[in-house]
Amino acid sequence: MDAIVSLCRRRGFVFPSSEIYGGLGSTYDYGHYGVLMKNNIRSLWLQAMVQERDDIVALDSAIILNPRVWEASGHVGGFVDPLVDCRTCKLRFRADQLDQASCGRKPSKRPGETPDCDLTEARQFNLMFTTQVGALEDESSLAYLRPETAQGIFINFKNVLQLARRKPPFGIAQVGKSFRNEITPGNFLFRVREFEQMEMEYFVPPADAERWYRYWIDQRFDWYLAHGIREENLRKREHSAEERSHYSSGTTDIEYRYPIGWSELEGVANRGDYDLTQHTEHSGTKLEFVGEGGERYTPYVVEPAVSIERIFVAMLVDAYHEEVVAERDRTVLRLHPAIAPVKAAVLPLIPRSAEMVEKARGLYEHLRHVLAVEYDDSGQIGRRYRRQDEIGTPYALTIDEQTLADDTVTIRDRDSLAQERISIASAREHLLDRLAAPWRPPGPG
Amino acid sequence: MDAIVSLCRRRGFVFPSSEIYGGLGSTYDYGHYGVLMKNNIRSLWLQAMVQERDDIVALDSAIILNPRVWEASGHVGGFVDPLVDCRTCKLRFRADQLDQASCGRKPSKRPGETPDCDLTEARQFNLMFTTQVGALEDESSLAYLRPETAQGIFINFKNVLQLARRKPPFGIAQVGKSFRNEITPGNFLFRVREFEQMEMEYFVPPADAERWYRYWIDQRFDWYLAHGIREENLRKREHSAEERSHYSSGTTDIEYRYPIGWSELEGVANRGDYDLTQHTEHSGTKLEFVGEGGERYTPYVVEPAVSIERIFVAMLVDAYHEEVVAERDRTVLRLHPAIAPVKAAVLPLIPRSAEMVEKARGLYEHLRHVLAVEYDDSGQIGRRYRRQDEIGTPYALTIDEQTLADDTVTIRDRDSLAQERISIASAREHLLDRLAAPWRPPGPG
Repeated sequence: MDAIVSLCRRRGFVFPSSEIYGGLGSTYDYGHYGVLMKNNIRSLWLQAMVQERDDIVALDSAIILNPRVWEASGHVGGFVDPLVDCRTCKLRFRADQLDQASCGRKPSKRPGETPDCDLTEARQFNLMFTTQVGALEDESSLAYLRPETAQGIFINFKNVLQLARRKPPFGIAQVGKSFRNEITPGNFLFRVREFEQMEMEYFVPPADAERWYRYWIDQRFDWYLAHGIREENLRKREHSAEERSHYSSGTTDIEYRYPIGWSELEGVANRGDYDLTQHTEHSGTKLEFVGEGGERYTPYVVEPAVSIERIFVAMLVDAYHEEVVAERDRTVLRLHPAIAPVKAAVLPLIPRSAEMVEKARGLYEHLRHVLAVEYDDSGQIGRRYRRQDEIGTPYALTIDEQTLADDTVTIRDRDSLAQERISIASAREHLLDRLAAPWRPPGPG
Repeated sequence: MDAIVSLCRRRGFVFPSSEIYGGLGSTYDYGHYGVLMKNNIRSLWLQAMVQERDDIVALDSAIILNPRVWEASGHVGGFVDPLVDCRTCKLRFRADQLDQASCGRKPSKRPGETPDCDLTEARQFNLMFTTQVGALEDESSLAYLRPETAQGIFINFKNVLQLARRKPPFGIAQVGKSFRNEITPGNFLFRVREFEQMEMEYFVPPADAERWYRYWIDQRFDWYLAHGIREENLRKREHSAEERSHYSSGTTDIEYRYPIGWSELEGVANRGDYDLTQHTEHSGTKLEFVGEGGERYTPYVVEPAVSIERIFVAMLVDAYHEEVVAERDRTVLRLHPAIAPVKAAVLPLIPRSAEMVEKARGLYEHLRHVLAVEYDDSGQIGRRYRRQDEIGTPYALTIDEQTLADDTVTIRDRDSLAQERISIASAREHLLDRLAAPWRPPGPG
């Protein structure tokens, strides 16, 4: 994991946020390659969940909603962690995670283990960030930053039913930032205070809920395989009845084998009719489906929910390899080509050759209209290949002596290191074809 | 404008947010077509500003930054509106906009015009939303929701300089939500409390700032023309010295002729070295460029800044037409094909023909891997065409009797209404070619 955090910083994928001001706990800024990679993850999710289906529509609801939404959802009352304070060291701890905490005065001890520790009773602390909307600072202006995108979907259920002329089964998909005021955040991007969720609420007739729940677990599992995650690093884990939220009649995590161990990548939940029923009660608006024949029911909801950050880390971990090639070390990110931030690099073999540079610039400018590509003429070719390997660029096109004679270039494959000559005229189509082909991770180098 | 707000609601582009709970002032949720259109605007901006250039990199910084960022930027001290309260009616008003406000008791009068009005002195009200980070509710946990994305760029200047190996001129581009606690928001999407900014900070040697300022005004103006905005609805307006922020040595608005009159679409500012100098002073980290020859200077910054919401409204306004075609009214959105939420509709002429439906489904499923397309078999063909016209779909492919004989379909052009027959086998390439061709709005119908 340290190697990945270090690569992320060194190559500008992810920086600790506000660094010049000493940072801000568990908050990160994404650099160029991080942004490109996150954009790819988001687009591919939307492609699979919305563009390639005709039963799911997109939504983008506000971050600050009417606060009554969070009363109805149960977040105002129940989205809490138990906390204790130490009156001596003035630190605050999760009451249910004291065994993982350190005393503020004797960090080798847990809170409560030293004689001068003076812990308060646990009290419930709500994880929603609060703010004030409007100019008046009183109760009437209290509002919350959404802790999940799902509720924005439920409150638009009726709009979609009516205006998009939908009937169950149908889904509403949303991507956007959510915020949680975690007291003990940490572990790089695993538990951050602001994160980008991708959630889809799938509304079904109650009798079909179990079948759709199984369907979405499989769909989402397969999505990870199709985007290059190794099957041996993925598993499904069904929550026990004790673990589940009270409204859930089934929750399955798709777990990834992170360096810290198996941990949730995505959750798929059968939420029943809990949410629509709650909002019906609190808003006075009936959120139900009425069929043409007069049948009426409150649909059940199946929800696959994930954050881009968790996918981002899983894909980096899965792709990261250190190996020795031709007696030299190389670090390579074997990312799926559709996930890779840069699709191809265009490199003049000899940077001081004006003709090679001109050819390379021409090819680069031709490609960048349709693909994220990079031009690099900075120094020795081996080092330039390695730099592209490190950011996961699947192909490198090199302009050399022979290019000047016959307008062909070499195309180098990141994974196999095979080089092949292709014509400049066909390079764009050739690249697009290779990038569109199915891709599975090669065995470990 | 009313017609556009109504279309937005009716066809599911934009809904008032939290409607079932009585809404939340000036907050909107985007429905399916609104999301697709916003995604297109964002991608096209990133394509022009990042993908097609090698002097600009992308960034995605956090929304909640270290609060000292906003002290340095001047927002804690100076990002304020003057407000007055009325002690009688308990309403609060912008002191500088009393002429546009209504008394709470006699709405036909302005505040201060009725005898029982009792206005306080104006006081300064900060527009930043505040929140508390961490479990302690005291000064140390105070934080702000960013009111602009630009500062997240300035505080990462050094990271990009070092890690992306850049030297001026170079730029950093960012897209993301910003928040302003507007007291008198309103006018549909014009002044909303949360909005999505697209900002780019371009760092240049001080002597070149004026030239780059002019360059970016022209670049951005041309971007709107290239994406279908009519030239007669665009103009450049340079701010007078009195209008400008104190640190700006030049600001030009690209204005659009909205139904409410000419108003800012995008602003391009020459911010000088104000921001980097402020952050150098407050953070103690020197934000300057040091050349290989030892030259050192604080770059000047040229900033084109716009919100997706403003572009969204301008594009809808520009595209909206009501006209009479073949003796029937139609409403059409003449959006640039790259902006249109749906690129093509696939329609079986006779929905009860199983063969036509099968052919149409086949073509639809072939196209949706590469394009946002819709399948529609709901009723009379004329009505289906009009529905697509209303959401701006540039092409409709219709499967008819002849398709069953020779595997050709008609392709209907939204603007000219011309229909042409093409083969199903070539339909995908044909569509991609048409969509990639330059497009200018036709004269008013």
